[in-house]
Amino acid sequence: MPGIKELDLVETIKKLFNSGVPGLSLGIGDDCAAFRPARGMELLVTTDTLCEHIHFNRQFTTPKKLGGKLASVNLSDIASMGGAPKYALLSLNLTGAVDKKWINGFLEGFRDVIESRGCFLIGGNISSAANDLSFSATIIGEVKPALRLDRAKAAPGDAIYITGTPGDSAMGLSLLMERRKNYTAGERYLIERHLCPTARVEWGLALASKKIPTAMIDVSDGVALDLYRMLTASGVRAELDLVNFPLSKTARQTLAEHGAGLWRTILSGGEDYELLFTVSPAKIATLERMISRGEIVASRIGVIKSGTPKLAITDPDGQAVTLDKMGHTHDGATGKNRFPESEIVL
Amino acid sequence: MPGIKELDLVETIKKLFNSGVPGLSLGIGDDCAAFRPARGMELLVTTDTLCEHIHFNRQFTTPKKLGGKLASVNLSDIASMGGAPKYALLSLNLTGAVDKKWINGFLEGFRDVIESRGCFLIGGNISSAANDLSFSATIIGEVKPALRLDRAKAAPGDAIYITGTPGDSAMGLSLLMERRKNYTAGERYLIERHLCPTARVEWGLALASKKIPTAMIDVSDGVALDLYRMLTASGVRAELDLVNFPLSKTARQTLAEHGAGLWRTILSGGEDYELLFTVSPAKIATLERMISRGEIVASRIGVIKSGTPKLAITDPDGQAVTLDKMGHTHDGATGKNRFPESEIVL
Repeated sequence: MPGIKELDLVETIKKLFNSGVPGLSLGIGDDCAAFRPARGMELLVTTDTLCEHIHFNRQFTTPKKLGGKLASVNLSDIASMGGAPKYALLSLNLTGAVDKKWINGFLEGFRDVIESRGCFLIGGNISSAANDLSFSATIIGEVKPALRLDRAKAAPGDAIYITGTPGDSAMGLSLLMERRKNYTAGERYLIERHLCPTARVEWGLALASKKIPTAMIDVSDGVALDLYRMLTASGVRAELDLVNFPLSKTARQTLAEHGAGLWRTILSGGEDYELLFTVSPAKIATLERMISRGEIVASRIGVIKSGTPKLAITDPDGQAVTLDKMGHTHDGATGKNRFPESEIVL
Repeated sequence: MPGIKELDLVETIKKLFNSGVPGLSLGIGDDCAAFRPARGMELLVTTDTLCEHIHFNRQFTTPKKLGGKLASVNLSDIASMGGAPKYALLSLNLTGAVDKKWINGFLEGFRDVIESRGCFLIGGNISSAANDLSFSATIIGEVKPALRLDRAKAAPGDAIYITGTPGDSAMGLSLLMERRKNYTAGERYLIERHLCPTARVEWGLALASKKIPTAMIDVSDGVALDLYRMLTASGVRAELDLVNFPLSKTARQTLAEHGAGLWRTILSGGEDYELLFTVSPAKIATLERMISRGEIVASRIGVIKSGTPKLAITDPDGQAVTLDKMGHTHDGATGKNRFPESEIVL
């Protein structure tokens, strides 16, 4: 980090981020941050890291988008439990490859995403790194204990829902890897979904407050693998019917052009950060009303059945879809084949 | 990470770490960890990272010692606020340079240090890294609001105390850098202090419970720089008299051999993880009783005065000590000159 002094960077951070943090007793500027948790609430805590050449490539994104993505991938974990994000810690491991302007852009991107969700920076760490940039955040959220969701309570007969249009991010990554000079508007949309995923915090809160899901997980490593994780945790199996699987307009066109093989990308591409959840029959009508009112964008894609954890998928032509690999391997940025990255949560 | 499957690693972690965590609602195995904070307590949160080639070199340490050090540098921040560590998150960014045995050793070292202090692993993240290993922990602690300490309340007339024997770690690092085949027992002691620093959790708790310190900070970047941080935060100046400065036996011998120039290493070498605190005159007798009873190892090294933040140091010969640089630059592992690493806390 030649030319960047740590003290300057800390001052920049203090200026950039909101300092009027609710509930905070001690923020940036001491050995720890200190806060008083709201009474009767359960606290949620999660951490996720973006490593250069593994999760991102500076050529493919902007510092602002990257900062926003780090925020979103962490917020998404809070969303999946029905929680409200409250506090963030940010760790920057910096090399000489980035300058002050780049770092400021990254910080602004991170700030904009967390603060728009009522989540505020309270601390973190700054370090030099020898070769690779890496960025890590820890987010602390809160939830009423009775409303907190997890992935282990999917029950036979539950409908399976997914928010948004999964697969866009994986298609966007494939497009980025082509390193073309020009992309169509539709292609740019897919690329944006990869670079700037949205954490579904508001939807997670809305679902939890109405106690709609029996189980919920966020889709970081692909619908197939994350659903399989839910099945394993819940001790059930699932049947997915892709006939009503939600696809963006561009994804639909691409599927028409490339054929059914693209389902593999859509289902196991990863980095969607959509919410995958199960709903008991008694709650389906309530959820469908929320959907029709536009309170949430979600689609019914399958059903939970009793039996050994297993995922059966039928495509719109009635053909069984078999997946070579269930999950996403973050091989996009480097072309190397790596193991699926995720939290210590499998 | 060829040969290491993430799923295996998660299973290893689940086996290695204590799963009976007090207050925990949901631990390793979901998107977030969830816990219920004890009523009326303030929560403390801190994060710190060890980057390969910056903070450590695998040649100089063992995985177990490195895991323990990551735990200690984080626990030390909780100790400095008078807090009790409760929960830890661990992030591993792994390259092919380490194998399963190495990782297991690291995990065991981390576990032994946190669990011996009543702190338990509740989550984290596993990722591939392209070139550099890096390890990060987040620790959540708790403290009674009335007992929580910070660095900003040092007042004129307060005595300045330090725990342990600072400087050992920096001398140990210097010895390591000589890459000798043989070291004397005394030298090995100094090296161990660098590789295996002790977080002064129990002493921090004891001091806080008796409301002894007016201000406290942990010494990660050298007594001089961390004291200067306290002076800046408190708006006071300080006078240090090195005549009673606590030195280990080997440090004392080395100082006798190398002369007064070594004071610079002792005062600005860093990575001591001792507690530096100020005590009002009314509390000094109580503290001295604790010291004489062996409840804490601490020495009086100076006094706080009113005035612009500034540090005046007199060596045992009555000569003023001037420091070229106030703080520690983690240049040991690589020989490169880098900016002082620390939390976003200056």
